[in-house]
Amino acid sequence: MTPQTLNTVAIVGAGLVGSGWALVFARGGATVRAFDADPALRARMPGRIRTMLEDMRGAGLVGSVDEALARITVCDTLEEAVGPADYVQESVLERVEVKQAVCAGIDAAMRPEAIVGSSSSGIPASAFTAGLKNRARFLVAHPVNPPHLVPLVELVPAPWTDPEILPVLRAAMEGWGQAPIVVNGEIEGFILNRLQGALLNEAWALYEAGLASAADIDRTVSHGLGLRWAFMGPFETIDLNAPGGIADYSARLAPLYHSIALSRKDPRPWSAEAIARAEKERRETLSADQLEARTDWRNRRLMALVKHLRGQPG
Amino acid sequence: MTPQTLNTVAIVGAGLVGSGWALVFARGGATVRAFDADPALRARMPGRIRTMLEDMRGAGLVGSVDEALARITVCDTLEEAVGPADYVQESVLERVEVKQAVCAGIDAAMRPEAIVGSSSSGIPASAFTAGLKNRARFLVAHPVNPPHLVPLVELVPAPWTDPEILPVLRAAMEGWGQAPIVVNGEIEGFILNRLQGALLNEAWALYEAGLASAADIDRTVSHGLGLRWAFMGPFETIDLNAPGGIADYSARLAPLYHSIALSRKDPRPWSAEAIARAEKERRETLSADQLEARTDWRNRRLMALVKHLRGQPG
Repeated sequence: MTPQTLNTVAIVGAGLVGSGWALVFARGGATVRAFDADPALRARMPGRIRTMLEDMRGAGLVGSVDEALARITVCDTLEEAVGPADYVQESVLERVEVKQAVCAGIDAAMRPEAIVGSSSSGIPASAFTAGLKNRARFLVAHPVNPPHLVPLVELVPAPWTDPEILPVLRAAMEGWGQAPIVVNGEIEGFILNRLQGALLNEAWALYEAGLASAADIDRTVSHGLGLRWAFMGPFETIDLNAPGGIADYSARLAPLYHSIALSRKDPRPWSAEAIARAEKERRETLSADQLEARTDWRNRRLMALVKHLRGQPG
Repeated sequence: MTPQTLNTVAIVGAGLVGSGWALVFARGGATVRAFDADPALRARMPGRIRTMLEDMRGAGLVGSVDEALARITVCDTLEEAVGPADYVQESVLERVEVKQAVCAGIDAAMRPEAIVGSSSSGIPASAFTAGLKNRARFLVAHPVNPPHLVPLVELVPAPWTDPEILPVLRAAMEGWGQAPIVVNGEIEGFILNRLQGALLNEAWALYEAGLASAADIDRTVSHGLGLRWAFMGPFETIDLNAPGGIADYSARLAPLYHSIALSRKDPRPWSAEAIARAEKERRETLSADQLEARTDWRNRRLMALVKHLRGQPG
């Protein structure tokens, strides 16, 4: 199987993530067949995707809205969606029994050579594919929300996933405009949420100790660390931060970072007091009824940033 | 004292960081008086700053190069530089005995109402200002490298720093175009390097375990987490990642992040084997003789990103 053969993609689960995925595949040129068990979500999907595509066209990220939309068919049954698919993206509720039931349905309806990626953000594929006939064709393909604006996708195989799937799906994801990575094992939180969690855990510990306001901790990232991380990862960043590269940097600074790690050997859960204080601080900056508008602002900022980054030399 | 009174700024230490600071203050409209004990560095400074300013003008970040340069005077003695200064930025070598000696010289030459910020990235102000006559006027003002491209500045007082200095210097830094934060205590690594260290420690642990390549871990940040962190901090990011805001997000996800923290209770130093492997992987992507050119690329990318971010609605 070559990457080019993943021409028809089924979407199972037409919520926000599934709709974002449908847009990604249709924008990338695939024929998309979408299904959701909830008829209301099925009915809502095309309008929702049109709005997202129009926002992206406004930001210069998409050519023709109608052309992309024309590639999407909403189906009335799981079988209609999955039957002809080369690739299936499952994006149902993050509950193991729900994933198990839906994946059993996909397993029964799919072509044996199709590949099935789950949008699971935490549950490993081994927890809901063990008993399936085609279990070697299943893995996790975890996107960032929203998938049509943040391209990273974590491909996480179960122990029984056929390893030949990985380069195929990786190349196909690249072709659709995403940025796939391969995770070699079912570690809790995969890579992205572990990295985010490490930073968040430290941020909460500093905040709980009163060392800085939430706004100042945010600023440390948005006006400091995040500028480099928007176009270079942490390893390339330190590779360029010492004259002799990453080994030179490590020789100088590894002891400091180890000492910092040792100071957090006894991790406590995020404290209820700190959460209540942060909620109060955030609501003074952004009231609860503005959260949705601010999320729209975030999406517009992401679109503008993606547009900017695309124009830059790699 | 009001922020407006910080009109004359002395630079002590004219290396890369000191030169970047001189540019920041001159661009911000201050009169800058620079000194370095090394005559060769003093002689090199104006040309170095001119090159940086020309690069920034090329990126649309600076108007007149000559106007900014005209505000900078290189002085032959510490006294000439520091004597008339309202604010002194010390950027000498990161060694405690060097900082002690230089700060004693600044202490003897300064006006008693001046403020002295040290560029120290790790040594707290209490380690090199304890015996000074004007010790209440000293604190750490830690920039990110390069300070003229990444605006974050950490203001970290010693126990004896006059608290009235903090709002004054914070406002002045804002006026010069930087993004200051206040750290309420001399914690090791301050805020920025603790957040960077938390993420790096997790990245190294994942890499050491073979869970992903360094390139894929980098991609997780540069095509995932870093896109949001380029314009929002970690707290605002999670505030917008659950319908009910940060408290709602925490109720859903704090247990996962605590579980991740518990899996790293026994931190080990970055392993020599992993460092050697990462060095090899990086050098296959970027040979040692390309490091300097890639650093120039990084600076151009930072300039373009800063220019993009300035044009966006906050």
